[in-house]
Amino acid sequence: MNFISEKAEIGKNVTFGNFVTVYDDVKIGDDCVIESYCEMGYSNGKEKGPLIIGDSSHIRSHSILYAGSKIGKNLVTGHRVTVRENMKIGINFQLGTLADLQGDSIIGDYVRTHTGIHISEYTKIGNYVWILPYAVFMNDPYPPCDDFTKGAEISDYAVLCPRCIISSNVKVGEGAIVGAGCVLKDDLPAGKLAVGNPSKVICDVTKIIMKGNLKRAYPWKYRFSRGYPKEIVDKWMKESKNQFIL
Amino acid sequence: MNFISEKAEIGKNVTFGNFVTVYDDVKIGDDCVIESYCEMGYSNGKEKGPLIIGDSSHIRSHSILYAGSKIGKNLVTGHRVTVRENMKIGINFQLGTLADLQGDSIIGDYVRTHTGIHISEYTKIGNYVWILPYAVFMNDPYPPCDDFTKGAEISDYAVLCPRCIISSNVKVGEGAIVGAGCVLKDDLPAGKLAVGNPSKVICDVTKIIMKGNLKRAYPWKYRFSRGYPKEIVDKWMKESKNQFIL
Amino acid sequence: MNFISEKAEIGKNVTFGNFVTVYDDVKIGDDCVIESYCEMGYSNGKEKGPLIIGDSSHIRSHSILYAGSKIGKNLVTGHRVTVRENMKIGINFQLGTLADLQGDSIIGDYVRTHTGIHISEYTKIGNYVWILPYAVFMNDPYPPCDDFTKGAEISDYAVLCPRCIISSNVKVGEGAIVGAGCVLKDDLPAGKLAVGNPSKVICDVTKIIMKGNLKRAYPWKYRFSRGYPKEIVDKWMKESKNQFIL
Repeated sequence: MNFISEKAEIGKNVTFGNFVTVYDDVKIGDDCVIESYCEMGYSNGKEKGPLIIGDSSHIRSHSILYAGSKIGKNLVTGHRVTVRENMKIGINFQLGTLADLQGDSIIGDYVRTHTGIHISEYTKIGNYVWILPYAVFMNDPYPPCDDFTKGAEISDYAVLCPRCIISSNVKVGEGAIVGAGCVLKDDLPAGKLAVGNPSKVICDVTKIIMKGNLKRAYPWKYRFSRGYPKEIVDKWMKESKNQFIL
Repeated sequence: MNFISEKAEIGKNVTFGNFVTVYDDVKIGDDCVIESYCEMGYSNGKEKGPLIIGDSSHIRSHSILYAGSKIGKNLVTGHRVTVRENMKIGINFQLGTLADLQGDSIIGDYVRTHTGIHISEYTKIGNYVWILPYAVFMNDPYPPCDDFTKGAEISDYAVLCPRCIISSNVKVGEGAIVGAGCVLKDDLPAGKLAVGNPSKVICDVTKIIMKGNLKRAYPWKYRFSRGYPKEIVDKWMKESKNQFIL
Repeated sequence: MNFISEKAEIGKNVTFGNFVTVYDDVKIGDDCVIESYCEMGYSNGKEKGPLIIGDSSHIRSHSILYAGSKIGKNLVTGHRVTVRENMKIGINFQLGTLADLQGDSIIGDYVRTHTGIHISEYTKIGNYVWILPYAVFMNDPYPPCDDFTKGAEISDYAVLCPRCIISSNVKVGEGAIVGAGCVLKDDLPAGKLAVGNPSKVICDVTKIIMKGNLKRAYPWKYRFSRGYPKEIVDKWMKESKNQFIL
């Protein structure tokens, strides 16, 4: 039994679970799966337009997606995600169970996140970024304050490790890594690793050697290809050449 | 389609979403909104009385509120909050998405919390307190133990920053700040800032200067007024006088 | 109103809440309670067999349990737990609200967990282990990578304190304690306490003295018996003898 608004635009070959609610202001692409107990197009009055979900997306059960957000094709979510209003998200986004996106942020293509992440308003995230379990963004430098507009900026290929905290207004450079449990308060340059609370930059990411095979672990794009299109992986492989030889 | 007990006392002008469950032991004030997938008045047998929700409250979808808790008017929750039994909560409480209140605690007026906080049993929280994302209270000094009665006490105007941990039995003084990721194991005097794991008291909160305008950030009540009634803000402004001039 | 597959095997005296979904591949034992908004036997195609729930289990509302997991009798969950495929879990398991078990892991008997824990794939957890709020396991040593098979191993009687992080491939010895907020990167020997980020081993757990009564707090099995069967507690008491006298 579902409540699906007749005003919603539903693509071809879309399947729904049980107890689903789809509000008026929703456009769902073709070949999507909307699982049980989901709410699509929830309105809090702040949305600028409808909820738009690209083709071939899969929303797992108990999830809530607000009106006003636009998400590209091949979206896959875990269970119980909350995606608030006015997010602009690229293609092939993977969003982990219990994730909470607070709205008004920009996320690029092929970003993958794990369980329980929290992204605050006005955050900018590039392409191919990894966000591990329970990473949290802050957007309030002096809580409480009224200026939430200075979200963090995360560049392409960055890795935010489990339970790190990214302060408002910091920039994380391309391919940089924020370590597990790290509280990052200052900008992190491209290709650097920061750890600890308070955070310290301890080395170039290229210094991290994998125990198993004594190869460089980073940049990860030179050794990891699962889930990316062939033309992108081919480009990475060309770049990498002999990068793995120490 | 909803299951609403005929024994529940529902005020005037209350609206319900879809798939709502309201159990017997519930009193909801006038002008409230209870959104979809909510459970109101859930019983685990430990409750002392009904669930009482004040007028003009707004419970967002997928939330669970137990019998035995009494919450003042103008409550606003995010999605998926869990409020267990025997909480006594004042007026204008704001509770963030995914919050988990474990019951048997006291919370004052105008307390605001963000996503994913966890408040354990026997905690006491004053008025005008801010609790930022994923702050966690512990009530077990030597886990596992059987003495859960020594919850923390948080005084008025305190700020608990994202992902801090407040140990059992500690007291946080008026206007004190517990920093992001801080593990607070000892009492924090009024007006002090503690950071780190293990926590260190590093300064008076009045030493914190805002980068943008070179004014003091704290006490926050001298510069932040959104959401508080005029008579309270007027009082704060009188107190503040020239506090912002360095 | 519920959707319960006719193919599911439901024991005697099982009660269901409202808006429950039970899929095909489910075996629920006798005397169980499945509360409202639960999904039992969810399939992602990776499950090896049905969801099997032992007798006298209690699944609280809004929970999702996948096909492929087998859980012993007397399971008790909080609300909104997610238990993915192919978990093997012993008897008397207690799983806190918002917990997220990622599947393919082994958990022993009488394990108790609190709110918001996250257990990644290929973790092994012994018997009588305590996992406190928001403890997180990682299974990826160099994220992103493709080798998720080196989960952590936690021995009997260990205590994982709130918001600790257990790295992939580490071993936590019998009765060891990982402190609040600790980021554990290396093996922790039996009976040791580790704290901090990065973690340091600071003492034997037997050195921890309770403030209230000046007795040793650990091993906890010599002073805590709630919820364990008499024959086990009797054995612990025999072992303990004069352990509490300093």
